[in-house]
Amino acid sequence: MADSPILSVKVRLRERDGFALGPGKADLLEAIRDTASLASAARKLHLSHTKARRLLEEMGNSFRAPLVVLTRGGKDGGGAELTEHGQHILTAFRAMEAEAIGALEPLAARFQAFLVNQG
Amino acid sequence: MADSPILSVKVRLRERDGFALGPGKADLLEAIRDTASLASAARKLHLSHTKARRLLEEMGNSFRAPLVVLTRGGKDGGGAELTEHGQHILTAFRAMEAEAIGALEPLAARFQAFLVNQG
Repeated sequence: MADSPILSVKVRLRERDGFALGPGKADLLEAIRDTASLASAARKLHLSHTKARRLLEEMGNSFRAPLVVLTRGGKDGGGAELTEHGQHILTAFRAMEAEAIGALEPLAARFQAFLVNQG
Repeated sequence: MADSPILSVKVRLRERDGFALGPGKADLLEAIRDTASLASAARKLHLSHTKARRLLEEMGNSFRAPLVVLTRGGKDGGGAELTEHGQHILTAFRAMEAEAIGALEPLAARFQAFLVNQG
């Protein structure tokens, strides 16, 4: 979710039958980048390991090239890191969220005078 | 929710402790405008009457001036219509959603080549 004090914007990329990427998957990519571990990334986001794996699998099915490589095995998930492509996609997605906030902030500001408790 | 074939954007206006307006409340305003009845608007959106009333009440608490007037009573809800202010707020919110799609569409298009099943 991209947020400003007066605005929240949830951006999701569509694919034919659903969504290829949204804030949850982007958060997972970011947490993998930051922790280098799927299990740690899942913990950081308060996701079950099953849910984290499912999101990764969905991204694997959505994108032509891998966004993440699993660097070690093991039943708790092991190591994981973003590919260069994954980093590129994550950066581009965050830029799109920032663009949304930037474009809408002036419009959202016009509502503020009409609110009892401004954002 | 504002949608394009390749993009979905959910815009919400913040207030101090939550959200003053988002797609669900905007849909309710629109359905009230179109049906002139809270009960009919709720039915159209598959909302319980309780939920529809709660959304209206929240909007009543968020905005300084009324967005909706109830024109008749009765236990099933009775008539309802947008005030001029409510119509203005709804129009401005839909314009903000459209602006979001317009601003992000070119950015979202850049992801399409990377997807297996494009949006």
